[in-house]
Amino acid sequence: MKALVLERVGELSLRDIDLPSDLGAGDVRIRLHTVGICGSDVHYYTHGRIGDFVVNAPMVLGHEASGTIIEVGTDVRGLKVGDRVCMEPGVPDLTSRASKLGLYNVDPNVTFWATPPVHGVLCPETVHPAAFTFRLPDNVTFAEGAMVEPFAVGMQAAKRAQISPGDTAVVMGAGTIGIMTALAALAGGCSKVLISDLSAEKLAIAGGYPGITGINIRETSLQEAVAQATEGWGADVIFECTGAQAAMHDLFRIVRPGGTVVFVGLPPEPVAIDISGATARECRMETVFRYANVFDRALDLIAAGKVDLKPLLSGTFAFEDSIAAFERAAEARPQDVKLQIRVDTESEAE
Amino acid sequence: MKALVLERVGELSLRDIDLPSDLGAGDVRIRLHTVGICGSDVHYYTHGRIGDFVVNAPMVLGHEASGTIIEVGTDVRGLKVGDRVCMEPGVPDLTSRASKLGLYNVDPNVTFWATPPVHGVLCPETVHPAAFTFRLPDNVTFAEGAMVEPFAVGMQAAKRAQISPGDTAVVMGAGTIGIMTALAALAGGCSKVLISDLSAEKLAIAGGYPGITGINIRETSLQEAVAQATEGWGADVIFECTGAQAAMHDLFRIVRPGGTVVFVGLPPEPVAIDISGATARECRMETVFRYANVFDRALDLIAAGKVDLKPLLSGTFAFEDSIAAFERAAEARPQDVKLQIRVDTESEAE
Amino acid sequence: MKALVLERVGELSLRDIDLPSDLGAGDVRIRLHTVGICGSDVHYYTHGRIGDFVVNAPMVLGHEASGTIIEVGTDVRGLKVGDRVCMEPGVPDLTSRASKLGLYNVDPNVTFWATPPVHGVLCPETVHPAAFTFRLPDNVTFAEGAMVEPFAVGMQAAKRAQISPGDTAVVMGAGTIGIMTALAALAGGCSKVLISDLSAEKLAIAGGYPGITGINIRETSLQEAVAQATEGWGADVIFECTGAQAAMHDLFRIVRPGGTVVFVGLPPEPVAIDISGATARECRMETVFRYANVFDRALDLIAAGKVDLKPLLSGTFAFEDSIAAFERAAEARPQDVKLQIRVDTESEAE
Amino acid sequence: MKALVLERVGELSLRDIDLPSDLGAGDVRIRLHTVGICGSDVHYYTHGRIGDFVVNAPMVLGHEASGTIIEVGTDVRGLKVGDRVCMEPGVPDLTSRASKLGLYNVDPNVTFWATPPVHGVLCPETVHPAAFTFRLPDNVTFAEGAMVEPFAVGMQAAKRAQISPGDTAVVMGAGTIGIMTALAALAGGCSKVLISDLSAEKLAIAGGYPGITGINIRETSLQEAVAQATEGWGADVIFECTGAQAAMHDLFRIVRPGGTVVFVGLPPEPVAIDISGATARECRMETVFRYANVFDRALDLIAAGKVDLKPLLSGTFAFEDSIAAFERAAEARPQDVKLQIRVDTESEAE
Repeated sequence: MKALVLERVGELSLRDIDLPSDLGAGDVRIRLHTVGICGSDVHYYTHGRIGDFVVNAPMVLGHEASGTIIEVGTDVRGLKVGDRVCMEPGVPDLTSRASKLGLYNVDPNVTFWATPPVHGVLCPETVHPAAFTFRLPDNVTFAEGAMVEPFAVGMQAAKRAQISPGDTAVVMGAGTIGIMTALAALAGGCSKVLISDLSAEKLAIAGGYPGITGINIRETSLQEAVAQATEGWGADVIFECTGAQAAMHDLFRIVRPGGTVVFVGLPPEPVAIDISGATARECRMETVFRYANVFDRALDLIAAGKVDLKPLLSGTFAFEDSIAAFERAAEARPQDVKLQIRVDTESEAE
Repeated sequence: MKALVLERVGELSLRDIDLPSDLGAGDVRIRLHTVGICGSDVHYYTHGRIGDFVVNAPMVLGHEASGTIIEVGTDVRGLKVGDRVCMEPGVPDLTSRASKLGLYNVDPNVTFWATPPVHGVLCPETVHPAAFTFRLPDNVTFAEGAMVEPFAVGMQAAKRAQISPGDTAVVMGAGTIGIMTALAALAGGCSKVLISDLSAEKLAIAGGYPGITGINIRETSLQEAVAQATEGWGADVIFECTGAQAAMHDLFRIVRPGGTVVFVGLPPEPVAIDISGATARECRMETVFRYANVFDRALDLIAAGKVDLKPLLSGTFAFEDSIAAFERAAEARPQDVKLQIRVDTESEAE
Repeated sequence: MKALVLERVGELSLRDIDLPSDLGAGDVRIRLHTVGICGSDVHYYTHGRIGDFVVNAPMVLGHEASGTIIEVGTDVRGLKVGDRVCMEPGVPDLTSRASKLGLYNVDPNVTFWATPPVHGVLCPETVHPAAFTFRLPDNVTFAEGAMVEPFAVGMQAAKRAQISPGDTAVVMGAGTIGIMTALAALAGGCSKVLISDLSAEKLAIAGGYPGITGINIRETSLQEAVAQATEGWGADVIFECTGAQAAMHDLFRIVRPGGTVVFVGLPPEPVAIDISGATARECRMETVFRYANVFDRALDLIAAGKVDLKPLLSGTFAFEDSIAAFERAAEARPQDVKLQIRVDTESEAE
Repeated sequence: MKALVLERVGELSLRDIDLPSDLGAGDVRIRLHTVGICGSDVHYYTHGRIGDFVVNAPMVLGHEASGTIIEVGTDVRGLKVGDRVCMEPGVPDLTSRASKLGLYNVDPNVTFWATPPVHGVLCPETVHPAAFTFRLPDNVTFAEGAMVEPFAVGMQAAKRAQISPGDTAVVMGAGTIGIMTALAALAGGCSKVLISDLSAEKLAIAGGYPGITGINIRETSLQEAVAQATEGWGADVIFECTGAQAAMHDLFRIVRPGGTVVFVGLPPEPVAIDISGATARECRMETVFRYANVFDRALDLIAAGKVDLKPLLSGTFAFEDSIAAFERAAEARPQDVKLQIRVDTESEAE
C-alpha cells in the first residue's frame, strides 16, 4: 500500500509500505478520503521527535482523517459498508482503570496514529475499531470530517471549562487550536469570546466569526480589553492556547473571581505561574489531553450549523502532492489555518 | 401614584395607591417603561391565589419590568441616573444561610413583586436595590429588557442542566417558559432541541427558530422522534415544562443513560414519577426555582445576538389599557407568547 | 460442578451443572470462598422474577462473592494466582457508548451474575474478567470481601450525592442497603446520619455505629427530628432507601434549600413525588443503578478502618446448607442484615 | 479597651486603644475568650507587611477567636446573649457580585480582622455581624472554637477538592495548615492521607492521627511512597501546602490520571509549574482563598468527633503574657502547631 512515510527527520517519501490489515470482530475497514496535516505531523517531519516520542523507524504520518467504510467486522453494530465516517486516532485499552472511569484519553497504554511507533493514515486504507469511528451526517463533508479531530481538542477544552450559559471567554492565541477552541466555546454556551494574538492575519480569520473579537496584543492591552468587555469583573473562562511564558503573566489579571483557566497550549518546559494571584481570585485550572467522548458531539454541532469549520480550510492537496503539502505546512504561514490532503483521488464525493 | 391594582379576585382597577418610596443607600429609583404580563399575574387575577399565596388585600400586579434610573442611593456604584435597566423582582435577605451559599433564590424570606402581600410594578415608579438592577446593553430594547425575567427561568434551567457542548435536548411544552427554555438551552450549548406540545400554533412559533424542531404529540410519538434524532441513545437533557402528569410517563423513556431531567413546570399536586425507570438509566433530576445570578448572563446572550426574544412579543398595550391587556391575557390564546404593557407613555425610547 | 441452582420459582437444589469455564486472555479463574445472599437472590427464589427478568431455566444464584485466583489469562496484569479477591458481578460491553463515558453500569448490554439468564456464583469456581476483579487488602477477610458488593451500592449513592465535608444526611430505611448507605455517607464526608425505620431491631443495629442516630418513625416525627438536628435548616442529603410511597411524602420537608435527594430504594410502581415541593427548595435528585468504579474505593475505606462491615454479618452457612440459608433469608428476620454461605469448606483462611 | 497592639514592625504593646463599638441591627457584641496566633499575625509583627497589606498605623492583632455573646442587635435571629461562639474574621459586602454567587470570600471589598488597616480581636470585646458568628456546640471548647478559623482553610481545601468517597490524598507540608487540611480531607471522605515534610517533629504530630502516614522526604522519595500506596496509579488528590518551588516538581508525578491538585500554600513569587505534565494526566487544579460557608460544617465535624483539633494545641498564654506568646510564636518551633491566648481571664468556662 502506498503511503506518505516519514523515513527520518527531514525526509518524506510516498512509497509502498506494509501496514497491518487484519480486521477484528469489532473493527471496520475504511478507505481514506481526506487527511489533514497537524502541527505534530510537521514537527515529527522537521524535528523527528515530540518530547519522549522519537521517530526511530519509518512511520506513516497523518491522524486527522475521514473516509468510507468498505468492510465491517462480525460484531459491529451501528455502522455499515458505505458509511462516510471520521475517526478518533487514539485507541485505548478499554479495560484499564482510566478507561473504566471514562477517561480513556489518559489511559497510559493508548495507541495513537502517527505517534511513534504507531503508523498514521496518509494511505489508501486502514482498519480501526468501530467504537472510535463516527458516521458523518449527510450535510458534513469529508473535509469537515477530517477537521473534527483538531476541533475535538477545542471541544474537550470547552467541556472541561464547564461553561455556564452566557459566560465570557478569552482565548489566548489565534492559531488553529485557538480558533477551534473559540468556536467550541461559543457553541458551548459562551456569549462572546475575545481572542488575542500577535498576528494580524490570524486575528482577521478568527475575527471573521460572529461573536469573536480579535485583540492584537501588539497594539492593545489584553488586560484593558477584558476589563472593558466585562466592566472590570474579568472573564469567566480563559483558554490559554499559546503555551508561552509571556501569556502566563496575564492569566489571573483577566479572570474573574471564581473563574476558570483552561490550559490548552503545551509549554515545552515548566512555566512560571502566579499561584498566589490565582488564589486571590480562587480560580480553578483545568488541563486538556486530546479528548474523550466528544467526536459525536462535535459532529452534532457542525451538522446543526452551530459550528462552521469550512472557513478554516486553507488549502487542499492531491495525495501525490503530499510532500509539497508538508513543505507548505512547514512554512507556517499565518493565514494557513488548516491544510488537507485528499487521499482518495477517484471518488468525486465531498 | 396610579397603578394597576388587583382589588380582589376578578377585579382590577387602574387607580391611585400609596406605594413605598423611601430610597435606601443601596437603592435606585426607576421610572418604569415596560412591564410584561406573566401567567402568575393572570392567575392571581382569575383565581386570587397561587398555592399558599393569597390575595387578601389590594395588590399592584406586574413583575417583568424595565425602565430608567432616575435617582441613586448614596452607596450605589456602577449604576447612574439615565441608565436603562431591568430588574430581578425578588429581593432576598442577603445575610441568610441560603444567600451566603449563592442560593438567594431559595432564601425563605425573599420578597417578590406581585406575590402577596408585596406590590408589583405596574405603576410609574419604583425603588429597588441596585444589586438586583441590571443595565441594558445599548442594543437591547425596553421590550426585550422586560422579557429578561421570564427568560431568566429558562436560563436557570439551562444552568442547572449543566449542559455539555453539543447536547441534544427535549423541551416538553411549548408555552412561554418552554420556548424560553429551548432558547436558553440552545444558547447554552445544545446542538439541537426537540420541543413537544399539542398546540400547532405554539409549535409553529417555537419551530420558527433555527435549531428547534417542533413535535406535535397529537400526531407523532415523542419517544419515536427522540429515538430517531439520537439513533436510539436518548436525549442528554429533558426540560419538563408542562407540569402535567401525562408528560411524566415519557421522561425516562426518552432520556439517555446517565442523562438529566430538569423539572421546570410545576404540577399543582404530586405526580407519579417512575423512579425505577429513572434508576435504570441512572438519571439526575434537577428543579428550578425562579433564578439566581443569571440576569447579567441573559443580557449578554441577548446583546450578542445568540438569543432573540423579539419574535415572542405578541402584543403591546398602553398603560391605560392595562385591564384590557389582562383580559386578553386571560384568554390564553395559543399564539400569544408574551403580552406587554408600556407604562411610560411619554418616552419615545425603545 | 456442584452449584446452588434455582430450578424454578420456589425450588432450589444443590446439584451438578455445566458452567462456562473457558479462560479468556483478560480473565482470571477464581475459587469461590464466600458468597452472600442478596434480597434479589431470595426474590428470584420466592417469586421467580424481578421486573422484566424472569427465571425461565435453571439458574445458579449468588453474586456477592469473594475467593482466590487459581489461574490467570495471558494478558492479565496486576493480579496473580493466590490473590484473595472480590468481584463486580456485572460485566459490560466496554466498547459501548455508556462504557466509554465511564457509565458502564448503565450499558444496556451488561451481563450480571444471577440475573436471568446469567448464572451466579454459588459454586466452587468461576471465570471472570480481571478488570472487574479486585484484590483484597491483607486485613480484609473473605467475609468482608463478599460484602463489598452490597456496600458498593451505598458507595455509589454516596458518590452521586456529591457530599460536601460535614454534610448532615438522612437515610430513610434501615435495611441492609440503608445501613450500607449510612456507612458510606459517614465515611464519605458526612458529619452525622439520621436513619429512620419502623423496626426497632434494625434501628438498634444501625444506631450501634458512632455517628448514626436511629429514628423510629412509629414514635418520632422524622420531620421534627431533622428540624431539631439542623436548627430548622434541613438535611443536606436524603438517601431514600425504602422505595415506599409513604416515605416520599417527607422528602422535601426534611431537605435543606439547595439540598439533594438520592433515590436508592426502588419502588415497584411509579410513586407520587411532590415536584413543586422539590422546586421550592430547588433540590437536586439523583438515582443509583448498581455502581461503577467504586469497588477499589470501598476496599480502601474498609482496609483503612473507616468502614466496619463485620457487625452486619448475621450468620454464615456451610455450602451444603445453602438451601437452609435461603429459607432463613426468606424469613426476612429484622435482625438479619446479611447472611453468607461459605462455599470453600476446605480452606481455613478468612 | 486594652488590646494587643502592633505599633509598628517589631513592636508590640498591650495598651488601651479606642475600637469601634457601635452595635448595628444585625450585629452581636462578643466578649472574647480565646484567640489563636496565626502565622500572619506573626508575620505582620516580624515584617510589618504581607504582600500589598502594610502596617502603617497601630493595629490590634488576632483573628482566630471564640467568645460569648453579651448583646444582640434588634434584627438578630438564632443567636442570643450567653451563646458561646466563634467568628469568621472576614466580612464581605453581601451585595457584591461575588457574594451573590456564594463566593463572598473573594469579594474584593471584604474586610478581615488584623489585616491592615482593620483591627483584630486580641482585646476584651468586639462587635461582629451575626451572619458570620457561629454557636459552639456544647461539647466544643473555646480553645477548639478558636481553632475553627485555621481549620476552615483545610475545610475549604477539602471542599474544593470535590473528594469522592475513598480517595487517597497526599498533603505536602505538615505545618499547621497542612495538618488541618489532612484532617479535613480524612473527615471529608478520603480513606487515607500521606503527608510529607522535612521535619520529624511535625510528622510525628501529624502521624499520630489514624489514617495519616508521615513521609519524611529527607529519607524517603514521595514519588515512590505514593506509587507504593496506590499500586502505581497515583493519588486522587494532592494538597500542596508548602508554597515551595521544590514541591512543585513532584505534583504531576504523584497525582493519578484525571486527579486533582489543590494549591493551599502561597508561593511569594510565581513558581515553575509543569503544565505539560499536568496535561498528560489531564489534571484539575484548584486554589483556596480563605473559606466560605464552612464554619458551620467544621463545627459539625468537631462536635461529631470526626475531627479532633485538641492535640494541635501546643500552648496557652494569659492575655497579659500576649507579647511573650508572640515571641514564642516567632521562634517557629516545629512542635508548636497552635499557640493560643486566653483573653478572658475571669471566666472559668472552657
